[in-house]
Amino acid sequence: MVLVTLTTDFRGHYLGIMKGVIKNRAPAAEVVELSSEVEPFDVKGASFVLYSSYRYFPRGTIHVVVVDPGVGSARKAIAIKTKNYTFIGPDNGVLIPASKDDEIVLVREITNRSLFLKEVSSTFHGRDIFAAIAAFLASGGRLEEVGKRLKKIEEIKFFKEIGGDGAMACEVLFVDRFGNLTLSIKKEDVRLEDVEIAVGDRSYRARRSGTYADGEGLLLIVGSAGFYELAVKNGSASELIRALVGDRIAIKRI
Amino acid sequence: MVLVTLTTDFRGHYLGIMKGVIKNRAPAAEVVELSSEVEPFDVKGASFVLYSSYRYFPRGTIHVVVVDPGVGSARKAIAIKTKNYTFIGPDNGVLIPASKDDEIVLVREITNRSLFLKEVSSTFHGRDIFAAIAAFLASGGRLEEVGKRLKKIEEIKFFKEIGGDGAMACEVLFVDRFGNLTLSIKKEDVRLEDVEIAVGDRSYRARRSGTYADGEGLLLIVGSAGFYELAVKNGSASELIRALVGDRIAIKRI
Amino acid sequence: MVLVTLTTDFRGHYLGIMKGVIKNRAPAAEVVELSSEVEPFDVKGASFVLYSSYRYFPRGTIHVVVVDPGVGSARKAIAIKTKNYTFIGPDNGVLIPASKDDEIVLVREITNRSLFLKEVSSTFHGRDIFAAIAAFLASGGRLEEVGKRLKKIEEIKFFKEIGGDGAMACEVLFVDRFGNLTLSIKKEDVRLEDVEIAVGDRSYRARRSGTYADGEGLLLIVGSAGFYELAVKNGSASELIRALVGDRIAIKRI
Repeated sequence: MVLVTLTTDFRGHYLGIMKGVIKNRAPAAEVVELSSEVEPFDVKGASFVLYSSYRYFPRGTIHVVVVDPGVGSARKAIAIKTKNYTFIGPDNGVLIPASKDDEIVLVREITNRSLFLKEVSSTFHGRDIFAAIAAFLASGGRLEEVGKRLKKIEEIKFFKEIGGDGAMACEVLFVDRFGNLTLSIKKEDVRLEDVEIAVGDRSYRARRSGTYADGEGLLLIVGSAGFYELAVKNGSASELIRALVGDRIAIKRI
Repeated sequence: MVLVTLTTDFRGHYLGIMKGVIKNRAPAAEVVELSSEVEPFDVKGASFVLYSSYRYFPRGTIHVVVVDPGVGSARKAIAIKTKNYTFIGPDNGVLIPASKDDEIVLVREITNRSLFLKEVSSTFHGRDIFAAIAAFLASGGRLEEVGKRLKKIEEIKFFKEIGGDGAMACEVLFVDRFGNLTLSIKKEDVRLEDVEIAVGDRSYRARRSGTYADGEGLLLIVGSAGFYELAVKNGSASELIRALVGDRIAIKRI
Repeated sequence: MVLVTLTTDFRGHYLGIMKGVIKNRAPAAEVVELSSEVEPFDVKGASFVLYSSYRYFPRGTIHVVVVDPGVGSARKAIAIKTKNYTFIGPDNGVLIPASKDDEIVLVREITNRSLFLKEVSSTFHGRDIFAAIAAFLASGGRLEEVGKRLKKIEEIKFFKEIGGDGAMACEVLFVDRFGNLTLSIKKEDVRLEDVEIAVGDRSYRARRSGTYADGEGLLLIVGSAGFYELAVKNGSASELIRALVGDRIAIKRI
């Protein structure tokens, strides 16, 4: 039994169809929604979602990501074998933070049309290419057959600068349903207590707290993925400081 | 192993309970959410969702649809055997475009109360009747046992008129999460380039494009189900032209 | 094969990760989303969701609930064995209405850190503790091993007062997607026809109806869980009377 996870910026029958294609071609595969809550076209947010989730799944899991603003354009489709997993998706960087973290073994461009659905649309490669390739691999197909080796792939990096003088800059990687903001600085990077943060020309104090339930106002906590997060108890940090994925945030100790 | 798909205009524990009923009575069945994103009471939208999805699932899959504004009223419950699938749902037309497409073999009214949950509510036939019947069929029960043969069933048709003079009329079948509008005209029906469309007394130019990623303004593309779609790159066509499922759209070549 | 259900006030990759942890440690378990539609921090709503759903799942199902505003604080984590099921979640009352309904056999505090994920965050016990314990039990682990017997646990009660004079008070237990309001009075408690209801200083007439499809204006029906509900045909009762989960409602026969 192989697990196939799906991470998408769509839900509904588009997601349902992908499950159908996989079950049709790989009946023994088990399909699991990793997340269908990625914001439309939010490639960076999706790359964080995958990065912070992939390792909790069984060794050998195939992770498929379809957050693909360039579908139908010249962007490539890729499959990456890492030490413990396989990643499938568009060549827009979305797979990179997770793949690198697990150590990339092999990258192939997906070009073998005989493995795709018979008719390939220009708008839904999730169904016609990615689900079909996932099913192929889940039913024992070899990665070498999906296409030729690829040397240069698109990258995504999580921006951060940590100065010697205690000034730091980072970006928002993710906003969850509660409005908590995940920042691109990890607890291993630097040990923070209370800080002043700036977004654009607005600045705020954030008090270091152990949990979402402690304290008042803007809180700085270490989130479950090991990154610092900005949070507001029973409220939304995203609304309070008006920041979204990709926004730069400056941080100063106080 | 039999697959049972669920298409509903509800989510949450109502959907969860349906899975429970099916797993309780047919432990070997695998339950897959096809879509729980149908708009409340949107029978036509659901019929399109089913039509454009059913064929991607393995032969023998049981497709259950619960979009059922008439629950508790006199509307019938039906099960349809087609060439490759079984469809279960209310007799409001929602199953028809898909069933006809796959070729209807047998239609039965669902009346055998001994197969339902012990107590049948007047508000949740998804649990008490449809999930129970799906479990019965998924565990090997015969369609003939669910009730008597039915001759007349409710229909849904996708409206379209294609005039010889190049004037066409159609309707919106579906609005996706990005605001893309699926129209009821297929690429096999007529080959379109740039067009003028009219909704009510508003009219717009739509430029023919190969993908969602190409071009500016209102785009006319062929969507993944083979129907024409109106789209706006990184925007919402539904908001731009203020159109929803069921709205009539006139199309003129330019 | 053991079923593990998840009821959460979050979706997306946080939910996906929980599935990963369970499949990783209990490969034969089947994970089912019972509901991920609980409103953030709505412990009472979640307790109703569980109460009205748990019994539809196969005997032996493990029900995990992560609606946990106190995560990281001193609140305990508990596992409850009932006559037919196992319940896992925070000790905030959310498991109680369901557990009592099925008859509590044994309550254990979850304290055995050797069963948790290696590193336990202060913000995501759904992953680090609850999913890990569910996997442990789903793969045959004994409840006695999760921690010591617990005598006093937090309670949740559904408020209702039914006076001899026909005056009643209750609370809203749940608001569904359509805006239907589930009240804390069951049809076994009292037989109601047309009533006058009051929310704060606003009062409304509600006409007794058999289904959502019958009648006009505010309707009083018996919902699928056996509780009275307030509904508006093709509309939202919650918007009409401006009431949410936990709001008190007075009821008078007319």
